Amino acid sequence: MNSLPSLADIRAAAARIRPYARRTPVLTCGAVDARAGARVFMKCENMQKVGAFKFRGACNAVFALTDEESRRGVVCHSSGNHAQALALAARLRGIPAHIVMPSNAPEVKKAAVAGYGGRINYCEPTLAAREETQARVIAETGATEIHPFNNPRIIAGQGTATLELLEEVPDLDVVIAPVGGGGLLSGTATAAKGLNPSIRVIGAEPQRADDAARSLAAGRVLPSENPRTIADGLLTSLCDLTFAVIRERVERIITVREEAIPDAMRFVWERAKIIIEPSAAVGFATLWEGQLDTRGLRIGIIVCGGNVDLARLPWQAGA
Amino acid sequence: MNSLPSLADIRAAAARIRPYARRTPVLTCGAVDARAGARVFMKCENMQKVGAFKFRGACNAVFALTDEESRRGVVCHSSGNHAQALALAARLRGIPAHIVMPSNAPEVKKAAVAGYGGRINYCEPTLAAREETQARVIAETGATEIHPFNNPRIIAGQGTATLELLEEVPDLDVVIAPVGGGGLLSGTATAAKGLNPSIRVIGAEPQRADDAARSLAAGRVLPSENPRTIADGLLTSLCDLTFAVIRERVERIITVREEAIPDAMRFVWERAKIIIEPSAAVGFATLWEGQLDTRGLRIGIIVCGGNVDLARLPWQAGA
Repeated sequence: MNSLPSLADIRAAAARIRPYARRTPVLTCGAVDARAGARVFMKCENMQKVGAFKFRGACNAVFALTDEESRRGVVCHSSGNHAQALALAARLRGIPAHIVMPSNAPEVKKAAVAGYGGRINYCEPTLAAREETQARVIAETGATEIHPFNNPRIIAGQGTATLELLEEVPDLDVVIAPVGGGGLLSGTATAAKGLNPSIRVIGAEPQRADDAARSLAAGRVLPSENPRTIADGLLTSLCDLTFAVIRERVERIITVREEAIPDAMRFVWERAKIIIEPSAAVGFATLWEGQLDTRGLRIGIIVCGGNVDLARLPWQAGA
Repeated sequence: MNSLPSLADIRAAAARIRPYARRTPVLTCGAVDARAGARVFMKCENMQKVGAFKFRGACNAVFALTDEESRRGVVCHSSGNHAQALALAARLRGIPAHIVMPSNAPEVKKAAVAGYGGRINYCEPTLAAREETQARVIAETGATEIHPFNNPRIIAGQGTATLELLEEVPDLDVVIAPVGGGGLLSGTATAAKGLNPSIRVIGAEPQRADDAARSLAAGRVLPSENPRTIADGLLTSLCDLTFAVIRERVERIITVREEAIPDAMRFVWERAKIIIEPSAAVGFATLWEGQLDTRGLRIGIIVCGGNVDLARLPWQAGA
């Protein structure tokens, strides 16, 4: 296994991605504060390029390649924000990005990847088919695989959001980030604990994809099998690297009822007036679902993304 | 007619509302800049209390009342953001707000006014019925009418958004604000021209409710009759006071095709990840509808509000 990423890695990532990534705003909202009973600082990665924090990690991984490596391009299998992020980062470096996507991925995601210049390789919607297709692309092109989270450069890139958040609001008591594969949470914890060991870092996870909570309890990685949750950015499970980082640096994982996710999403849309995706709503739900004593705390929350199909919203009939 | 409001009035309003109103963020978005061919600074009044700039004016008007006046309460006839704003401002001062609303107003607006403690008086959806009902409330309670725009204190309050915008980004070439009754545009122009006479101030108006453009061309107030536009915050027409301010201080009114409004709204939702209402989208549409040479300019835009029924969006079938 790779050695755990450090604060120094995150600082290096921040310098590397500075010309390309957006320094996202930190917003507050009285209604969110009132519901949480806390002062909440929203680090708006929904306003990051490609609409998600994923651009930070992908950008760091792409620009850390040697010129020789980079010429052969990059590849990933992802139907989500990582695919868009990798496509855009590759375009900015002027290299090919091969994206392996299941043929049943939402149209909006296919269009977004294509719009950023990604070369899409469709496959059947199974993990085996994705891996086979990716292996074929690598054999044909020599492209470097950029895994969405099992990669220390990805983790370091994701941590730059928390670096910026704590530069702006240094005196936080808690930082909350959603956890799927664990890249964001690992980067968040590495940055926060590196800057201030007394900050508490908490992961937010849907109950229906609660592998991080179960894995930490068991002391080993226990993947979710075919999880079904509206938080479609959090379907993946921890890998060895993110498990190791999270076990060392994260205080706990809070799991959230499925029904609380669209409710939190709509609350934030209506009151904070920002568009967040269901995965980001999982973080907000931890603020008022009663498992965390938030009273009087100053809480940073990584609003991980804002990519939603606006034609079909979860609170609408037929959605 | 009242004398025209001045920059000093806006500064006084800013001091008066500071403990209550939110200093809203100024956001930027690369996709908006690219589409506009300009650098665009979005003053996010959709994140103001009650979700619209209207709170600034209502708050200024309510807190400018004498104690004696205030005890008798305030009244308006409005089914929109002004009603919510007046209800909340009155609650903050601890006085009654009587809101006259047509019985067919959207449920979400009725609920919002009631939620802020406004005392709703329903009437038929005609101007005559609204005015009669309001006159009855005044006769019964002695409440002070707070007109949504024909009131110098309202205009001064609305201008505080531009005061903040120019404090944060002083070197703007243009400021754009939507125009319905003209309170926001009057306040915007008074603040901008007062701070820097070389700033250009432009009004944004739906073609289907283009009374401001027609009135300026004719040199007298020519109200729209039963206008129908998706920009439901811009249905009202200029009054003598706002006409006088706008004629003196606004460079021009740009009218926007109806079809451009939901298109601009969706673009801003998808790319800037902020929730804006159709009235705010009218301002964005002026940036790329070709009537304004935006190239290379630094443009401030007052994002007037973000109150939308999330169950029914304009780009959805059946909406």
